[in-house]
Amino acid sequence: MDDRPIGIFDSGVGGLTVVARVRKTLPSERIVYFGDTARVPYGTKSPGVVRRYAQQDAAFLAGFNPKLVVIACHTVSALAADLLRKKFTSVQFLDVIGPSVARAVAATRSGRIGVIGTAATISSGQYQKALKKADPAVRVATAVCSLFVPLAEEGWVSGRFVEEVADRYLRPMRAARIDTLILGCTHYPLLKRAIRRAAGGQVVLVDAAEEIAREARRFVQAGRMASSRPAAPPVLYFSDCAGTRGAVIRRFLRGGGCRLRRVSPAFLEEACDV
Amino acid sequence: MDDRPIGIFDSGVGGLTVVARVRKTLPSERIVYFGDTARVPYGTKSPGVVRRYAQQDAAFLAGFNPKLVVIACHTVSALAADLLRKKFTSVQFLDVIGPSVARAVAATRSGRIGVIGTAATISSGQYQKALKKADPAVRVATAVCSLFVPLAEEGWVSGRFVEEVADRYLRPMRAARIDTLILGCTHYPLLKRAIRRAAGGQVVLVDAAEEIAREARRFVQAGRMASSRPAAPPVLYFSDCAGTRGAVIRRFLRGGGCRLRRVSPAFLEEACDV
Repeated sequence: MDDRPIGIFDSGVGGLTVVARVRKTLPSERIVYFGDTARVPYGTKSPGVVRRYAQQDAAFLAGFNPKLVVIACHTVSALAADLLRKKFTSVQFLDVIGPSVARAVAATRSGRIGVIGTAATISSGQYQKALKKADPAVRVATAVCSLFVPLAEEGWVSGRFVEEVADRYLRPMRAARIDTLILGCTHYPLLKRAIRRAAGGQVVLVDAAEEIAREARRFVQAGRMASSRPAAPPVLYFSDCAGTRGAVIRRFLRGGGCRLRRVSPAFLEEACDV
Repeated sequence: MDDRPIGIFDSGVGGLTVVARVRKTLPSERIVYFGDTARVPYGTKSPGVVRRYAQQDAAFLAGFNPKLVVIACHTVSALAADLLRKKFTSVQFLDVIGPSVARAVAATRSGRIGVIGTAATISSGQYQKALKKADPAVRVATAVCSLFVPLAEEGWVSGRFVEEVADRYLRPMRAARIDTLILGCTHYPLLKRAIRRAAGGQVVLVDAAEEIAREARRFVQAGRMASSRPAAPPVLYFSDCAGTRGAVIRRFLRGGGCRLRRVSPAFLEEACDV
């Protein structure tokens, strides 16, 4: 048995969709979440800045002595996962890219896979590289969908307007006749209906939250590291209270209680000398 | 004569529209600009975080010994202008709210004035307060237009899609039958055409960039502080290179040369003990 918590972090509130899934899959595990709402978004920023922020986020969660840290953010997974594993040698990390790629390669029949994500994630080329490594025969189409994050945060997740945006962004996916689409950002599952419609009804959508939750369960079971304690609500830390209103938290967390905490950006800067 | 530069800062690239106007109005002044692209946007963040970042930005520009610092960011102007004046007693600050309010009150005939801005700007109530102070008889309508910033940064500034967004956000302005509208965010002038259409063709749009440039000229002339040196291109500092591609800079700066520089977020954190 292992009563240490599972840490999960993201650039903002989006990673709460991962918290929701992990909680459902591993109900007796304690979860400590960190969302860097003071500096969100990461996906429009440069690799150096993302790596700096990622190290501060990981240092903050490492302070809780976690059995596992889930990198819920696709941008951090793409740009800084290797660096975090190298810098924090005593911490076990799971990133969202590996499980998403494994699922996509297993799901595709035509070998044509699409990936949508932030500018930073797509231009890193990490998804493309990982897909080709998993199956050199697959053909990969990508698209940057910058407005999906503000749309999800604004709560505009359906309607003609959102459909038009999705239609515009996913045009290259229809042209490439993909049959499987990786949702490469924690916000995108909120726009699933519009994305599915724009991608073509038959396309399999890969939601990293589901995949990473399965991976976390495998990790806990393989290591015989299950918690012996009774279930407790997740503890959520944010670097800014803006955008963390109850309604927003509930939309991403999909019900259940939680305990909200704050952490100052100054503390983060001091937490890690990079 | 006074050969010290004029400092201008904003949360990102949006304030370059102010640089463009100040350069046109005061062509022989040296301009040092800072855009906090590593932490953009400010308008979705809480007052405490905005104040912290604003102090770091001001401390950075204070290091250039400027004759004047223009707070181009409406969110900072609304939440931190008083604090900056109190903390940096040797620096002269101009904020965008005063000149915009003066212009709006002079322009309105019906006394019905609209203000659009970020969530932080509008919920601060500073524009509403300043308008009422300038003329207690005016009636003020406000709207938060969160998607205008990502739309402008994505370069989606016209077309049916943008018109729909503008139409939705500006509905309360049409209902309030305003005749004057303050564009309370440096990004909004890029969407002027769609905003004008949605607000109703006869509405006067108040663009803070124009007003602040006039105010800067008055300041320089009143204090006999004009530069004696030949004109030089503005020097632009950013905390992240992301989003500062030549095409983006040119769109906001509207032509003319410039010198690009970088400043690390770590340096900013160290520059000011807050």
